[in-house]
Amino acid sequence: MSREIAGFPQLTATIDGGFWHRYQVLVRDEVIPYQWKAMNDEIPGAPKSHSVENFRIAAGVRKGTYDGMVFQDSDLAKWLEAAGNVLAVDHGGNRELRAWAEEAVDLIARAQQPDGYVNTYFTVKDPSGRWKNLREAHEMYCAGHLIEAGVSLFRGTRNRKILDVVRRLADHLDSRFGKEKPKVRGYCGHEEVELALVKLARLTSERKYLNLAAYFVEERGRSPSYFETESSAPGFTPIFGIKSLDYYQAHAPVREQQHAVGHAVRAMYLYTAMADLAMETGDASLAQTCDRLWEDVARRKMYVTGGIGSSAHLESFGADFDLPNDIAYAETCAAIGLFLFSSRMTRLHDDAKYADVMERALYNGIISGLALDGKSYFYVNPLEVVPAVCDANGSYRHVKYRRQPWYGCACCPPNIARTLSSLGEHAYHLRGDTLYADLYHEGVVTFPVAGREVSLRQTTRYPWDGQVRFQPLGDAGAEFTLALRIPSWSRGHRLSVNGSPLQGEAAADGYRRVRRRWSSSDALELSLPLDIERVHADPRVRADYGKVAIQRGPIVYCLEEADNGAELSRLQLPANAALEAAERTDLLGGVVVIHGMGVREAGGPAGANAAPAGELYSRDDGRRPAEGSSNVPTAKDLLFIPYYAWANRTPGEMAVWIRE
Amino acid sequence: MSREIAGFPQLTATIDGGFWHRYQVLVRDEVIPYQWKAMNDEIPGAPKSHSVENFRIAAGVRKGTYDGMVFQDSDLAKWLEAAGNVLAVDHGGNRELRAWAEEAVDLIARAQQPDGYVNTYFTVKDPSGRWKNLREAHEMYCAGHLIEAGVSLFRGTRNRKILDVVRRLADHLDSRFGKEKPKVRGYCGHEEVELALVKLARLTSERKYLNLAAYFVEERGRSPSYFETESSAPGFTPIFGIKSLDYYQAHAPVREQQHAVGHAVRAMYLYTAMADLAMETGDASLAQTCDRLWEDVARRKMYVTGGIGSSAHLESFGADFDLPNDIAYAETCAAIGLFLFSSRMTRLHDDAKYADVMERALYNGIISGLALDGKSYFYVNPLEVVPAVCDANGSYRHVKYRRQPWYGCACCPPNIARTLSSLGEHAYHLRGDTLYADLYHEGVVTFPVAGREVSLRQTTRYPWDGQVRFQPLGDAGAEFTLALRIPSWSRGHRLSVNGSPLQGEAAADGYRRVRRRWSSSDALELSLPLDIERVHADPRVRADYGKVAIQRGPIVYCLEEADNGAELSRLQLPANAALEAAERTDLLGGVVVIHGMGVREAGGPAGANAAPAGELYSRDDGRRPAEGSSNVPTAKDLLFIPYYAWANRTPGEMAVWIRE
Repeated sequence: MSREIAGFPQLTATIDGGFWHRYQVLVRDEVIPYQWKAMNDEIPGAPKSHSVENFRIAAGVRKGTYDGMVFQDSDLAKWLEAAGNVLAVDHGGNRELRAWAEEAVDLIARAQQPDGYVNTYFTVKDPSGRWKNLREAHEMYCAGHLIEAGVSLFRGTRNRKILDVVRRLADHLDSRFGKEKPKVRGYCGHEEVELALVKLARLTSERKYLNLAAYFVEERGRSPSYFETESSAPGFTPIFGIKSLDYYQAHAPVREQQHAVGHAVRAMYLYTAMADLAMETGDASLAQTCDRLWEDVARRKMYVTGGIGSSAHLESFGADFDLPNDIAYAETCAAIGLFLFSSRMTRLHDDAKYADVMERALYNGIISGLALDGKSYFYVNPLEVVPAVCDANGSYRHVKYRRQPWYGCACCPPNIARTLSSLGEHAYHLRGDTLYADLYHEGVVTFPVAGREVSLRQTTRYPWDGQVRFQPLGDAGAEFTLALRIPSWSRGHRLSVNGSPLQGEAAADGYRRVRRRWSSSDALELSLPLDIERVHADPRVRADYGKVAIQRGPIVYCLEEADNGAELSRLQLPANAALEAAERTDLLGGVVVIHGMGVREAGGPAGANAAPAGELYSRDDGRRPAEGSSNVPTAKDLLFIPYYAWANRTPGEMAVWIRE
Repeated sequence: MSREIAGFPQLTATIDGGFWHRYQVLVRDEVIPYQWKAMNDEIPGAPKSHSVENFRIAAGVRKGTYDGMVFQDSDLAKWLEAAGNVLAVDHGGNRELRAWAEEAVDLIARAQQPDGYVNTYFTVKDPSGRWKNLREAHEMYCAGHLIEAGVSLFRGTRNRKILDVVRRLADHLDSRFGKEKPKVRGYCGHEEVELALVKLARLTSERKYLNLAAYFVEERGRSPSYFETESSAPGFTPIFGIKSLDYYQAHAPVREQQHAVGHAVRAMYLYTAMADLAMETGDASLAQTCDRLWEDVARRKMYVTGGIGSSAHLESFGADFDLPNDIAYAETCAAIGLFLFSSRMTRLHDDAKYADVMERALYNGIISGLALDGKSYFYVNPLEVVPAVCDANGSYRHVKYRRQPWYGCACCPPNIARTLSSLGEHAYHLRGDTLYADLYHEGVVTFPVAGREVSLRQTTRYPWDGQVRFQPLGDAGAEFTLALRIPSWSRGHRLSVNGSPLQGEAAADGYRRVRRRWSSSDALELSLPLDIERVHADPRVRADYGKVAIQRGPIVYCLEEADNGAELSRLQLPANAALEAAERTDLLGGVVVIHGMGVREAGGPAGANAAPAGELYSRDDGRRPAEGSSNVPTAKDLLFIPYYAWANRTPGEMAVWIRE
């Protein structure tokens, strides 16, 4: 590997208006303070986090015993990463957040052991258990999140203390794990440290961190299995007791893996690191492995919301096309993982199909995890909910119809915070002098062209409106290519520069490229038609067969009981029903809703609690119901709202897919 | 309660030909010997039962430790009940079975404690735990099955030894439990002893057993809760740890219970005992409670196969109309429980609607639990199976697509054996001089009319053919009414006596009554048209909405992959598709199959393992597929087989409901 480390892209993108700005302000003003309280066990009625308390105990500033999941440290780490993201764009103006972050860094630094090790579970609760259960103990997973936090906070605030902590932690890992004797040839049961080490390598230009990440990826799944050797050693103490190697993506060397299997979040973090490494090393076979696994997920295992991991049991992938809507798992973290993997794939291949999936996950299955007020969270993101069924049938017990104030296993809430606060990093990418616009949003991007720094302002009301305008800021005159992603849902688009239409189409990779020497008075206008789309699933998706979903731009819609009454399964949307979009600033923080004339099937008494009357099963006598009888379907005005905004009103039924 | 105990109905019905005879021969020749081996741990590759071994240890004839579920004794008891049923009609001709039964009785008698107590778990493993956890320990449940076994074996073989054992056991219960001080005001967490005590009272004409049954039923659910008091006592040791009173039907006094809730088998056994008691006591409010709970189950919580208990979690009822086909539980024992409850309701009210449900459960959700060779069993009876999904998604892990040779919790296999060997008891009932024919089968019924014994032969190929013929046997001349159930699925019927048509219709209670002085040359011919019915579920059943099931007579049909290829969810049966029945003596032990011209929806590559090609989600562009394109649905000859016979060939997909 003689190539240089690519380093962090030198572009910076800020978001200062529109849809994502609202979310970033929410994260800054509500989510981050709320989560700091939650991790300090200060939210009445919420499950205790113990995250900060565990660090206080490990730091020696408080007496007590460890509490929480074995990976509880990672909650604070993800939060700290989010704090770093916020402080990076909110220079100096957020003293309270800076103080919290410094308090956290101080505790983490004090909790670090002389050899660089940081993990409060093993420091406080089980010192002799350190590194003895790589399969289940999440030590490197927690280390990885801490490294990501360190990179973010250093970038955001130049906090050297946290950078020193995470370098010493990474050095500790490097001294202990690897192929060279007498190092241990282990790797972590929950991937994460691999992608974190790539980030640290890019920040520090230290090749050893990249090499360690590559070692972890390459070693995984080799025979004899490290996990099997480890767990058959005398004195091995299981934590969760999950033995399946598939679950850990450790059933085969990564290059031999043909399908996405096991725990969905783990798979995504592994594949993300693999794509990072393929990018850094130019390794074609690793890139092909990423391609194959990405296709497997996006073509066979992904909900229309970008949710993945359909099985509640072990939070894992199900069979191909097994995407049940009502018992869906679709963990928020897994959708975030798909977003991260797709973001890396966009950069690896300069292909917009990956950014299409980033967008699908982001606007739907990721932000569905967050209440509009930022103070409650979904871990599981079903596409169909009937509250009475969830209450009565334990097969649905993972499915909630109210977001929860916190979770005993609270991986998702701070993961949403760090993701939404980092969107600028994913919105563009640069290859040579081509700037790729991957996600549309209002804000400014600054990037180098031939040694000079160029800024572009993007103005848009996306995703509610398809008009996107780019204008150079300040000193212009640079020649570069702007590559605009034309979303796969878009039927034709219009492009003009300074009012003059440009002829042409998007390339096969989904980008429309405009190369020119840009002047500061230039204005490039992209117009994406936001048609209301009727979406159908591959017929092998049993749960969606004969059903239709509604999408407009990147937003997937749903029906809620609050707007459409109960028994949503009795509603139909005829194939020829007219659909109309309407802006509703008063509703759900401001959304575009869709109206359509549907049909409500009749038959049987209304209301699930109506007295039993007819037979549960009736014979078909070939007669159609008479006009005016109670069995005639009735026309019904349907109101669709964005899926992400469901469960922000009175709890009730919800459905994304409706019979056609 | 001044009424006499009604006693056992003096009618006896034997089955000597046709559909059920084949099953009774199978039970006698294959199932019972196989299960005796299984309970003696002699089936290679099957989970060990330990049932007989536990009794050997408790009897002192073998040293060892108890093994198996806490209720393992009940397996042997249910098997012994089946043995009694078989021996009752198979006088003397079955020496091997008689020897096994006597060996079992001998062990049970030796295992009985001086005070009458019988339970190998507490005798061998936990003597100090006796009667300390009525909620979970199943002691009275096991006692109840032993009492039922005793009644059956005494009736079948006049074995006084087992009758003495179970009377002493019942006396022990009576001495310990009841309202009168110093008795304990407890009752069992798993109902069963209540209905068993009614049987014992009827056999022995001992009112105290009826009173004890009534006590158990009446005490249940009173406040303060016995279960809550018991489990908060010092030293209480939980077994399963299930606290919900609903689960045990102990959330309210039985007369106040409005809905069927909790563990489905428990509920059915309780309701069965309640119906028995209502019959014995003429208690109108208890009868009304039975009516209400039966309606709740049959109108809101029953699969088309007669399966009940849709939730795998706690084997319990789900919400009204929550009847998912693929994650169904529908335990074989629960369908048997519904059969027993409905049989009692038929006798309580002389109403054929209850027998319709008996028949639905029997021909579908009960015998689906048994392989055609009698040697493997389903515990769970789904209505839709995709093997790859069951393998990959843990939410389906209770669903098997191969019957199993035995179960660690093997409640279902001997329950099927005792049920099928007792069908004669359920086929008819007698009220005064009216003989009700509730289930049709080939055989002879003997019953008293005005002091003389009358025999009728029934000749039929039901359920494959709708012709049923009744002829008095031997000395005739008695005047009585024959009440023939006209099944709810029947569209009109014809009746003739000695070739002359009888005009008339079934009464509102579903019976067609014929009163005459019967001569030995009389022949009554009932002709039920076995139309192929298209069945639709109440539209509140989300899982079946827009789908159709096929039924002919009492038999519910399904599609299997073996006949129709994979991806059954892509098949449709148009509303106007012609359907045709065909007898297939070569198939599945001899069945009538249904042929119909369906449609196979196109789109997407065929085969779940085909390479990813198209998008998982596609936009509708409003165009219909061109003629000849690969997206045109293709006509497809569909072959439906009886549901009960599925999974007797190569494992594959199965579906009862098909899109219309």
